[in-house]
Amino acid sequence: SFSVKGTSAHNVFASFDIFKGKAALSLNPVLPTFTKLESGNLVVSRRGVVMLKFTPAIGERRYDWEKKQVFALSATEVGSLISLGPKDSCEFFHDPSMKSSNAGQVRKSLSIKCHADGTGYLVSLTVVNNLLKTKENFIVPVTAAEFAVMKTACSFALPHIMGWDRLMSNMPSGVGRQQS
Amino acid sequence: SFSVKGTSAHNVFASFDIFKGKAALSLNPVLPTFTKLESGNLVVSRRGVVMLKFTPAIGERRYDWEKKQVFALSATEVGSLISLGPKDSCEFFHDPSMKSSNAGQVRKSLSIKCHADGTGYLVSLTVVNNLLKTKENFIVPVTAAEFAVMKTACSFALPHIMGWDRLMSNMPSGVGRQQS
Amino acid sequence: SFSVKGTSAHNVFASFDIFKGKAALSLNPVLPTFTKLESGNLVVSRRGVVMLKFTPAIGERRYDWEKKQVFALSATEVGSLISLGPKDSCEFFHDPSMKSSNAGQVRKSLSIKCHADGTGYLVSLTVVNNLLKTKENFIVPVTAAEFAVMKTACSFALPHIMGWDRLMSNMPSGVGRQQS
Amino acid sequence: SFSVKGTSAHNVFASFDIFKGKAALSLNPVLPTFTKLESGNLVVSRRGVVMLKFTPAIGERRYDWEKKQVFALSATEVGSLISLGPKDSCEFFHDPSMKSSNAGQVRKSLSIKCHADGTGYLVSLTVVNNLLKTKENFIVPVTAAEFAVMKTACSFALPHIMGWDRLMSNMPSGVGRQQS
Repeated sequence: SFSVKGTSAHNVFASFDIFKGKAALSLNPVLPTFTKLESGNLVVSRRGVVMLKFTPAIGERRYDWEKKQVFALSATEVGSLISLGPKDSCEFFHDPSMKSSNAGQVRKSLSIKCHADGTGYLVSLTVVNNLLKTKENFIVPVTAAEFAVMKTACSFALPHIMGWDRLMSNMPSGVGRQQS
Repeated sequence: SFSVKGTSAHNVFASFDIFKGKAALSLNPVLPTFTKLESGNLVVSRRGVVMLKFTPAIGERRYDWEKKQVFALSATEVGSLISLGPKDSCEFFHDPSMKSSNAGQVRKSLSIKCHADGTGYLVSLTVVNNLLKTKENFIVPVTAAEFAVMKTACSFALPHIMGWDRLMSNMPSGVGRQQS
Repeated sequence: SFSVKGTSAHNVFASFDIFKGKAALSLNPVLPTFTKLESGNLVVSRRGVVMLKFTPAIGERRYDWEKKQVFALSATEVGSLISLGPKDSCEFFHDPSMKSSNAGQVRKSLSIKCHADGTGYLVSLTVVNNLLKTKENFIVPVTAAEFAVMKTACSFALPHIMGWDRLMSNMPSGVGRQQS
Repeated sequence: SFSVKGTSAHNVFASFDIFKGKAALSLNPVLPTFTKLESGNLVVSRRGVVMLKFTPAIGERRYDWEKKQVFALSATEVGSLISLGPKDSCEFFHDPSMKSSNAGQVRKSLSIKCHADGTGYLVSLTVVNNLLKTKENFIVPVTAAEFAVMKTACSFALPHIMGWDRLMSNMPSGVGRQQS
């Protein structure tokens, strides 16, 4: 089996950050990885996601990045987010240890709950860890304008995390002759 | 007549897959091909499509890829799909042997039917083959979130299958002097 | 004064064509041209447009391309088109000889008129030429699906005909050191 | 500390201009700048904006560019603008001297106010300068079609001013072998 490796030596950090009183919420897209088959064709080996990162506040405009928790939105969960109306809510559940011996020990739930008056959302993450006997909770109020940025940025990112931009950039760039 | 050939030796596989109990539905864009005219200009010779692939289930999360059937959405059919509201339905009919001696022998119909409560769609393909005396039927329930991914991905793909991204990427990149 | 010249020797033809009984309607974007200032900066010298081309039918699925008439939509007119609801109509007037001695002699009017039931539009072009004493009229019925393609393709094209994609592709690609 | 420097020696000017009787309004995106960390990674050092420029009229279709005033929309303010419905209004307040000793001395407020009939907006900028004892006011009526261009262009620009297009273009382009 083969793997596609990047030629660029560096990463780029350009998350969209929402800093609020009790916690901060950061979004950034994570691209898919491709595997090269014997045939020379490329196939997606790990799907891309939009990563949500929650960080608790420990003072005025200060956040404890060591205590962050992440939630990785799949393409379909991004589909839910970008089709959410101002009066809609949604909730997703993840088990980071799914299919391992620790399955069910850690449960993450992300909730996006609209305000009754349609002026924004409460975005919250709950992480229950039965192994460590911990329960963490993060709440970030998101305004309608901030959510519009999230929707537009996620709509832009969606074809990229699906790998569809690769299908496009793979277009013929050379022009050859061919008899007919 | 001339033809544009790609410089890249490999294909990229990044379909959007919806695996359900009775069948799986996969979408991927297929780019147009261009022909080079004597003048040096390029003209679209075969239009691009968004390809839908249906595969029957043969067990729990197992699908028989040998029995797949495809349905190629044209730009205008993609236009129908992306403008479909939560309470709208549509149906397309294709004859893969159109304009040949077998015209009318195989009939394919794709139906996208909304749930009455607007929570998703039933996407089904029927293939009637009078030559083989067969009739195949595939049904895939698609949630609102999955359909939002289909719409966003198809909206992204549409200008590409039309070849309009080529018009764009063909922009002047060099800068020359010109007397005025 | 300087001018930006393309490095690519060929044009790309990828219009979106709607063939109907009495006439055909073709759309394709035309990119802006840039002029290089003494400072080395580039400024848009001619704004891009979305070109509409109407061609009369002269038999079954045959069109007389010699008798075509064009109508160039500006960025703001494209803005009208892409914000048109299913029950909205609009009309634009152009004078191709504006600001010349023939001003007012040729009048072009483009009308996009919705069907009462919201199922599509009648797109028509009228060209009155007082010099040649002619009046031409083209009518193309456009379905909701075809109009969805027009809207999506024009939304994709809009930032390109405005030259905003150039602002983007002009991003720093090199990485240098700088003391602070 | 390191800084990313562009390789291109020239800037590109392609603003979207709305010329009206009392003032002109011009929009153009300004990209973010990146800083290179010791690790080789890139991080956004200055966020991008969509710049609004107001210029007073001094005669028929003549504007005094020396008297222009600017207002830089952040990503979240762009989010407000692109989610504005035909019957919605919004207002933003900026202090260009925020966090300096002159804080509060200059106040800028941008207002986007819908017409009661939903046919467009009044966009106005007020700049009160307590140091210079001046108060300037610019009013530009914007039609629904012009606002549609502003929304589409700003939606296109948003991922770019956030730096998300850099995350995307940083995709692996080389293909290497890797043992598994």
